[in-house]
Amino acid sequence: MLRVDGERLWSDLMTMGAIGATSRGGSYRTALSDADRDARNLFVHWAKEAGLTVTVDRIGNIFARRRGADDSLPPVMTGSHLDTQAPGGKFDGVLGVLAALEVVRTLNRAGVQTKRAIEVVNWTNEEGARFPPGVMGSNLFAGQTTLDVLLNTRDRSGTPMGDELVRIGYAGRIEVGRRPVHSYVELHIEQGPVLEAAGVQIGAVTHTSNQGGGMIEFIGENGHLQTTAMSQRRNALVGAARVIAAIEELGMAQEPDGMVSATVIDVWPNNRVNIPHKAQVGFLVVHADAAGRDRILNAIEQLSASIAQECKLGVSFSRSPQRHRFEFAPELVEMTERAAGRLGYSSMRLPTWTAHDALNMHRVCPTALVFIPCCGGISHSELEWCEPEHATAGANVLAHMLLGQAQQLDAIADE
Amino acid sequence: MLRVDGERLWSDLMTMGAIGATSRGGSYRTALSDADRDARNLFVHWAKEAGLTVTVDRIGNIFARRRGADDSLPPVMTGSHLDTQAPGGKFDGVLGVLAALEVVRTLNRAGVQTKRAIEVVNWTNEEGARFPPGVMGSNLFAGQTTLDVLLNTRDRSGTPMGDELVRIGYAGRIEVGRRPVHSYVELHIEQGPVLEAAGVQIGAVTHTSNQGGGMIEFIGENGHLQTTAMSQRRNALVGAARVIAAIEELGMAQEPDGMVSATVIDVWPNNRVNIPHKAQVGFLVVHADAAGRDRILNAIEQLSASIAQECKLGVSFSRSPQRHRFEFAPELVEMTERAAGRLGYSSMRLPTWTAHDALNMHRVCPTALVFIPCCGGISHSELEWCEPEHATAGANVLAHMLLGQAQQLDAIADE
Repeated sequence: MLRVDGERLWSDLMTMGAIGATSRGGSYRTALSDADRDARNLFVHWAKEAGLTVTVDRIGNIFARRRGADDSLPPVMTGSHLDTQAPGGKFDGVLGVLAALEVVRTLNRAGVQTKRAIEVVNWTNEEGARFPPGVMGSNLFAGQTTLDVLLNTRDRSGTPMGDELVRIGYAGRIEVGRRPVHSYVELHIEQGPVLEAAGVQIGAVTHTSNQGGGMIEFIGENGHLQTTAMSQRRNALVGAARVIAAIEELGMAQEPDGMVSATVIDVWPNNRVNIPHKAQVGFLVVHADAAGRDRILNAIEQLSASIAQECKLGVSFSRSPQRHRFEFAPELVEMTERAAGRLGYSSMRLPTWTAHDALNMHRVCPTALVFIPCCGGISHSELEWCEPEHATAGANVLAHMLLGQAQQLDAIADE
Repeated sequence: MLRVDGERLWSDLMTMGAIGATSRGGSYRTALSDADRDARNLFVHWAKEAGLTVTVDRIGNIFARRRGADDSLPPVMTGSHLDTQAPGGKFDGVLGVLAALEVVRTLNRAGVQTKRAIEVVNWTNEEGARFPPGVMGSNLFAGQTTLDVLLNTRDRSGTPMGDELVRIGYAGRIEVGRRPVHSYVELHIEQGPVLEAAGVQIGAVTHTSNQGGGMIEFIGENGHLQTTAMSQRRNALVGAARVIAAIEELGMAQEPDGMVSATVIDVWPNNRVNIPHKAQVGFLVVHADAAGRDRILNAIEQLSASIAQECKLGVSFSRSPQRHRFEFAPELVEMTERAAGRLGYSSMRLPTWTAHDALNMHRVCPTALVFIPCCGGISHSELEWCEPEHATAGANVLAHMLLGQAQQLDAIADE
């Protein structure tokens, strides 16, 4: 039975993790940074070494294609992303790209030909750490946004994504998306504690959570910190502080069905001697039920209004685009379980609480998301970790699913 | 009796206010920005027009000198700053520079010669809005810091002050300070409500307040917002929010003797999907008594420690350099009152709650700080305003004080 080279995969993960490595064992490789460029270059080098044809589209998504016997058929796509949080770990996203590459090498070694082409993709800016929001490359591929919007998205220093794509050499010429894809399979660490706690090796992801979020803007009035009477101050930062604390209390009351925290704050002028006149707070909600998410959003809107009144501040509340629960293709969930079973791995069904490129690809073609356990459920952290045997198991399941989707034409030696 | 041209002064204030003008009537002219460069160029142009000799030192302080009969004597210095908060008003600092310039023009028109030279100075980066802390140019002039430290001070985008000085063309060649100054007189808006409430035209500043401040850093742990259980989160932003709210409550309890607010916050990674692992909060305290200031600082340190414990965060607390109350030269306080009296203006003694370049010059030579009322006590704000007749009155008092200090040699026509 076809098996990937787990040692090569682990070696590749550690090599990639050295690009933008941090002192605590993580990686700092935000989208379109120098480190992201280096990671892309290494991926392209490895892909060409494996005989793949590499193309880059206008938003910098990289496709490494292994020809099919009937190359005119829509390809089977697999992959994830090489960019990280700021800082992030060595596995979130990276595993999905490098495991797919190792699967292709395994097919090469076994001399397997498939009817359909297999394309290994590295999506641009999944994390959104530098250019929010995330899952941008796959979002555009799925036709959910426009190239112009993305190229003009700026980081905190005002640099547009389009300029950075050109600078790092990944502003490709190929139009984004608008082509048929047969199916998409993405391998990822769970980023949660469920598989580890259950002692299960493979997770077949059945559905997504409901997500929402928003931004609260408080407007006060500038003033000199050393002369404006305390009772006259309209300090926008104080409104922001009170709503952040209140959101955390609200979140504590939602477990285990939902979660919410404020995570982002921007303040003007953010100068020691000046009373802040403007503060923006960003927060994110996830909930098992759409109604639960909406209750939280409504509660935060009410909190914001009452805090603004108490602090003599103006306020505006805006909701970010919501993500509604959906189900992944049932036949691919079953295929995940079958592949795990054939390989002798335990598996279970579970939802994903987090966003992935697979959530966008679900709009394009039948899509599967496969999880492996990660230590302590920790991710978006330098402490993120997965065991080598789980990475190997995930890559083996991926190999069998891709073979099934791309339609193996030749017998595999040991089968 | 010598009188300045109040209309010319007002016209100059409005002209200068047009550089970096904001839609709400203020100016946005942070130190070493393009707008600051334009303001400096205009000041130099006006100074040369008035026959003054302009020199620039290594930190960009600009000195416009009117020769004295005995030019070897230490000069009398006067001025303030042209940089503003972000945004600020048209008067804070600008009045002191432009009134001094108008005094010199008035002496020229009246054909007055003085024994000592008079130098009009524009100090670099009084506000500290872009490059904290403030009063930098005068601080270095007074030998309280080093050129290297200032040139390497960076703004939030990482640009060093030294580079910006070169870029805007104000990296002068003259050594900073290290020369005798006979005396320093600075005219400024009060930036507080006292003169306006008392209906008094001129304030003779007797002493400063006690000031202190600090920075609280909370350390949490990165984590994925959508998968880390609420009870497991170590969200550094939540600690910051709670301490900001607590500091404001503490401040409310201090009035009228003291004031404190948190005004600055920085958070890492400040990304929607990530639990913040680090947050820094900056605050500033002023108090009539040193003991009162110290009580507040101690209380904030204790608050920070208990909040950190409750939120499972690491914490460090650092105190910024404190400013202790001092008295301005009594003979110059009396001179301010005498000048006001001779000109027919009401005057009163009062302290300054805010920092000024005069506080640094106090270490170099006998120094006077003269206040005029500002509307509603508002400053560091686009709403900052002073009445034209108050600006004229202040400039007239400044003229008479400078004449007294520089020793008038010729009779004034109408005296």
